[in-house]
Amino acid sequence: MKVIVDLCVVPMGVGVSVGKYVAECQKVLQEAGLKHQLHAYGTNIEGEWDDVFAAVKRCHERVHEMGAPRITTSIKVGTRTDREQSMQDKIDSVTKKDF
Amino acid sequence: MKVIVDLCVVPMGVGVSVGKYVAECQKVLQEAGLKHQLHAYGTNIEGEWDDVFAAVKRCHERVHEMGAPRITTSIKVGTRTDREQSMQDKIDSVTKKDF
Amino acid sequence: MKVIVDLCVVPMGVGVSVGKYVAECQKVLQEAGLKHQLHAYGTNIEGEWDDVFAAVKRCHERVHEMGAPRITTSIKVGTRTDREQSMQDKIDSVTKKDF
Amino acid sequence: MKVIVDLCVVPMGVGVSVGKYVAECQKVLQEAGLKHQLHAYGTNIEGEWDDVFAAVKRCHERVHEMGAPRITTSIKVGTRTDREQSMQDKIDSVTKKDF
Repeated sequence: MKVIVDLCVVPMGVGVSVGKYVAECQKVLQEAGLKHQLHAYGTNIEGEWDDVFAAVKRCHERVHEMGAPRITTSIKVGTRTDREQSMQDKIDSVTKKDF
Repeated sequence: MKVIVDLCVVPMGVGVSVGKYVAECQKVLQEAGLKHQLHAYGTNIEGEWDDVFAAVKRCHERVHEMGAPRITTSIKVGTRTDREQSMQDKIDSVTKKDF
Repeated sequence: MKVIVDLCVVPMGVGVSVGKYVAECQKVLQEAGLKHQLHAYGTNIEGEWDDVFAAVKRCHERVHEMGAPRITTSIKVGTRTDREQSMQDKIDSVTKKDF
Repeated sequence: MKVIVDLCVVPMGVGVSVGKYVAECQKVLQEAGLKHQLHAYGTNIEGEWDDVFAAVKRCHERVHEMGAPRITTSIKVGTRTDREQSMQDKIDSVTKKDF
């Protein structure tokens, strides 16, 4: 099952600056070979369900290993059976006004 | 790794009434033996990471099998390494004003 | 326009224990006279759009006043024009299996 | 109070293709003069609290006017008092590894 995910990992108990933890999560996604795109409030990810969620779990493990005692993460998950759709297709469906 | 999750599954392309799909997800959580509590905008779930996310995947599979061609799900995931915390502990931390 | 909202306010830069900030938000909702119900990963709120969002803004103001330098909040907002629906109706639509 | 928001509007009861509703929300943000950036699972918005949330309300109004009987929206809201931060600053804090 293919998924498009939006991931936002928030480490708690480490102060206000969390850029290095988010950068580590980008590294995890890179290592997993998953297509992903950072934005100002999270990261879009595209892939097989199991691969994507294994990577999300590794993000939590790594961020804890880096010293964050608590993490709260928001995930949006989209699946569809009617047709294949990539992250770029989703953006095109809005911007190309080709409804 | 223990997690507390908030899950909100939204089937698309099946009309405005989605209660039966949400009820099916409750059944999935029940079958998985996971502690869970329905509220007005989702379901709190407590358990091991792998068990909880296997159940979330089964929710998507079942809701698609029931005929929903598209699903968008929101998940909040909390993990902590400093101490164990149950769903009830989280509520108590607010209501008992025992900070 | 009536809304049902799920609100989860996460103060950052104040350590791992955030119960007192969440309790303050409960007080804000109480003062606003809004129907609300705390759960393990947020608070359900029911009311008019403007009243609910004014209260959400006050939550941010208060939590900053309490000393949190940064806040990240997740909100789910439901509106419908086909019929009135309360928080309890949403729960009933799942548990009463009266689809 | 400045906010950075991530907005994801999901019309229900209108079938699986929701691109035209999302495009209308982009128009609302444009008309409001708000800085915004579409991504594959939502739209980042930057502005004053009241301006941003007035636009979010107009999105709900417009999408209902277009015929969607039900909407479920996810919003992430970030505020901070320690310093100003733009959407681009948030991305830079991750990609420039300048922690």
